[in-house]
Amino acid sequence: MKTEDSLSTTFAALADPTRRAILARLTRGPATVTELAAPFSISGPAVSKHLRVLERARLIARAREAQWRPCQLDAGPLREVAEWTAEYRRFWEKSFDRLDVYLGELQAKRREAAGKEKGNARSKKQR
Amino acid sequence: MKTEDSLSTTFAALADPTRRAILARLTRGPATVTELAAPFSISGPAVSKHLRVLERARLIARAREAQWRPCQLDAGPLREVAEWTAEYRRFWEKSFDRLDVYLGELQAKRREAAGKEKGNARSKKQR
Repeated sequence: MKTEDSLSTTFAALADPTRRAILARLTRGPATVTELAAPFSISGPAVSKHLRVLERARLIARAREAQWRPCQLDAGPLREVAEWTAEYRRFWEKSFDRLDVYLGELQAKRREAAGKEKGNARSKKQR
Repeated sequence: MKTEDSLSTTFAALADPTRRAILARLTRGPATVTELAAPFSISGPAVSKHLRVLERARLIARAREAQWRPCQLDAGPLREVAEWTAEYRRFWEKSFDRLDVYLGELQAKRREAAGKEKGNARSKKQR
């Protein structure tokens, strides 16, 4: 159950575009809260709140220095996400196959319907 | 922003162990709500609520028949998750390298500390 819980925490932390943008910024190297807040039109405290969520999910680590606490990316939990997702690879490949089959069927039905309409139109004319 | 929103919806839907267990069950084929509820100690309505979340996130599709509405997996959104995660692969590989460096440093410090202690013990004996 522990692994499931840590996965839930990771997924919940990732379910926000600002938090994902923060992680993307940190791929370029460590940054302070001020630096991380700069591209967003949200307050420093709002950024701090996002950072706490990311920190609890162990997606970032923060230096202990009181004044300048740079954040750095910790992508470890994303490895778990990738491994979890990999189990479904054959199904998303399949889902595209299924879509192809479905679209094929749809097209066949449309052709059939169009054929019938033409037929009806002809029989109306003949009457 | 649309892609980001759909990713947020997907991540939020995945942030629950019951919902992930439902997806895992559906890898074995379509199932009804009753079948999906069976392994869980939660009510039918609670399962239905989870199914609505998964349906909104397009992770499952439900047949339209009113009485027997089997659910089936739609792994399409998981492809997006996999693609998003892949961008961080080099960082989780790096984070293990960093851990190695850190553990190496820690070991060196311990050895150094152990050496000093031995030295202190010796000088105490000599006194």
